[in-house]
Amino acid sequence: MSATDLRAMILVGDGLGDRPVPALGDKTPLEAQPTPNLDALAARGQCGLMDAIAPGVPAGSDTSHFAMLGYDPYQYYTGRGPLEALGVGLEVMLGDLGFRCNFATVKREAADLIVVDRRADRIASGTDELTAALNSLPPIDDIQFIVKDSIEHRAALVMRGPALVEGLKNVAASPKPIITDADPHEEGEPIWRAAATVPEVQVAAAALNLWIRQAHDVLKEHPVNQAREANNLPPANAILPRGCGMAPDLDPFEERHGTKGGLVVEAGLIKGLGRYIGMDVLDAPGATGGYDTDHISLAKTAVAALDSSPFVLCNLKAPDLAGHDGDPEKKMEMIAKLDEMAGVLLNEADLDKTAIAVTGDHSTPCALEDHSGDPLPLIITGYGVRADAISEYGERPCGMGSIGRVRGHDILPMLTTLIGTAHKFGA
Amino acid sequence: MSATDLRAMILVGDGLGDRPVPALGDKTPLEAQPTPNLDALAARGQCGLMDAIAPGVPAGSDTSHFAMLGYDPYQYYTGRGPLEALGVGLEVMLGDLGFRCNFATVKREAADLIVVDRRADRIASGTDELTAALNSLPPIDDIQFIVKDSIEHRAALVMRGPALVEGLKNVAASPKPIITDADPHEEGEPIWRAAATVPEVQVAAAALNLWIRQAHDVLKEHPVNQAREANNLPPANAILPRGCGMAPDLDPFEERHGTKGGLVVEAGLIKGLGRYIGMDVLDAPGATGGYDTDHISLAKTAVAALDSSPFVLCNLKAPDLAGHDGDPEKKMEMIAKLDEMAGVLLNEADLDKTAIAVTGDHSTPCALEDHSGDPLPLIITGYGVRADAISEYGERPCGMGSIGRVRGHDILPMLTTLIGTAHKFGA
Repeated sequence: MSATDLRAMILVGDGLGDRPVPALGDKTPLEAQPTPNLDALAARGQCGLMDAIAPGVPAGSDTSHFAMLGYDPYQYYTGRGPLEALGVGLEVMLGDLGFRCNFATVKREAADLIVVDRRADRIASGTDELTAALNSLPPIDDIQFIVKDSIEHRAALVMRGPALVEGLKNVAASPKPIITDADPHEEGEPIWRAAATVPEVQVAAAALNLWIRQAHDVLKEHPVNQAREANNLPPANAILPRGCGMAPDLDPFEERHGTKGGLVVEAGLIKGLGRYIGMDVLDAPGATGGYDTDHISLAKTAVAALDSSPFVLCNLKAPDLAGHDGDPEKKMEMIAKLDEMAGVLLNEADLDKTAIAVTGDHSTPCALEDHSGDPLPLIITGYGVRADAISEYGERPCGMGSIGRVRGHDILPMLTTLIGTAHKFGA
Repeated sequence: MSATDLRAMILVGDGLGDRPVPALGDKTPLEAQPTPNLDALAARGQCGLMDAIAPGVPAGSDTSHFAMLGYDPYQYYTGRGPLEALGVGLEVMLGDLGFRCNFATVKREAADLIVVDRRADRIASGTDELTAALNSLPPIDDIQFIVKDSIEHRAALVMRGPALVEGLKNVAASPKPIITDADPHEEGEPIWRAAATVPEVQVAAAALNLWIRQAHDVLKEHPVNQAREANNLPPANAILPRGCGMAPDLDPFEERHGTKGGLVVEAGLIKGLGRYIGMDVLDAPGATGGYDTDHISLAKTAVAALDSSPFVLCNLKAPDLAGHDGDPEKKMEMIAKLDEMAGVLLNEADLDKTAIAVTGDHSTPCALEDHSGDPLPLIITGYGVRADAISEYGERPCGMGSIGRVRGHDILPMLTTLIGTAHKFGA
């Protein structure tokens, strides 16, 4: 069998990991829910534990997917801003700065713009027109400001200019904002003066502060806001950037891993990352990102994608929602869906030529209603694996498996080495 | 018992790790082959898995031995060239550049030298005379070019000069060639113009390109080549350098590990590395590096070496050959030899005062016929260990052992700490 016939997949249950729940007899939701298909994958594979980032470190979905796609987030992650921009569909290029933004309501007090409502009453319509008005503003110091609106008050911003491209070449990746937030995060506070944390973005920070003022001048007069004020709604008369990061310097997925990559996920942030590294990002019909998602469609889309991309990552968002909602029984229901997805893999992906990992991107314990750094249960199964004696998928059974304990960014090399596409280090 | 009585050894089965083989009842060659002596070592020791470099990363023999000798290859490895030079017996000093080379046949077309035969028909004799002619060329820009021929068309090159020594002090180690290849890797292509990848070697790259031309002028007129042409053999009228790396900045073995080190291996590349870090490199009588090697001689030489070097690494090359040949039954035969070597250790090394690791340098699965990143089975046994319940040496039994999962560069500290020579970090 030639290496070109071989495929690999990661099936991710978002927020899958959990802790013992007293109401479930001290089992985790994954341990309590019968999962015959996942157990079958475990039985023919190896099990272990995966720390998405490092032991005890709670991962975001973004950093965890950086890791599982083979880019160590400690080395490459530059913060949420550029991913948010990618996630809403903005083009982001090396040398750009990206921000998350809110449309907000401010009032003027002396020289300050005081934030009255950070979300402009979750403005439901008209942000496309406001965005168009912002995008017609001229560049400042040869820096373009490109905005795209998203759901409700949310938006993203990209700053782009030739001096930025040059300057950022010498700046090391860091998860800390390279320009501090203008968003004061609390109502009643004035918009903060954004400040450069490295000399290479001093001009950009000054331009951003000026642009925020110009944006206010344009927004406050805009017909959308005049209509809102006529209806006693707070105007979306300011834009508040935060979470600034430079575009991460990621080599393309195919170059890095020796195989094309496909992505079947529900979160815009992860889709944006996939497009940025040149993965084939596929939309599964009926995928909503909610409890009602068509999980079978997700799994079938992922299996079909293997024909054009020998590596595919597929993520089911729903278990994470149940974790955030603190609802172990709902989480069990969503894990039952993940198990049905595993059934699709068992029936439709040829395990004699496909290496499959099953894991989560982080734990979202129901008791915590938030992400935690508890390790994730991991199966590696299918082509080429040295199966161990574990035949049940769960946090504790996996803790006894032969993989031991690995990290999120190990997973992709562990799969590509099975299918023979991993690059050798040395001679 | 004083620390000076204690010894440590690593016994390496080259390419030892493998995957389940259907013809062997889904056992790996190591699991299928009875290994009473290795099992006895396992029974009195601890077992685990070792990633030579990192999970899933296929290691070369060079990077893996860097790691097992205690030098993290991510930090220290500078590519194949300097190791190749060391391997053929050239002296390499800090500040040198090393290359692999081929003697090749070229023809002139306008200003280009087109490669007609990258191996000059695997020239069997006379390269020593050609090498002598090259070594009589004068330095260029104060840079000496020192060549040594090896088997058939193979050779190595060292570039040495005071400006190089100064410039390379500030260049970080990288596995990527610091000067790009002149060897075009394909016949019909012109010799490439070598280019510096860092400013510190720009002068050297220019000198190299000039030297390649001068070498051609000398080689094409050489009596060895005149005789070849008279016999209708392609002349070895060019030398093609590739894989350039600076001499790695490795502190001497004894300084690093607090004990003298001995090396009993068959591959020239690893012998060269050992000499470079000041290890005592011993030749075992009858060691051929092939299937027919005298493995008992290797083991006895290694045990004897413990008297002068309290740490010894011993490598049996043959299992790797069987993996590359895709021959599981031959691999089992070679593993039986490794087991007999383990028998020598059991009988002749005093396990009450010797800590022994048994592992591989990388997996070479027969199904892949190449190196893979599958982890290696590891035993640590003998003096000072906390024995676990595993009593069978194999990939899967070791996956259940108490060592868990460690990396290649952890092994030497794990041994030196057992025998009390490891340097304390902190106070």
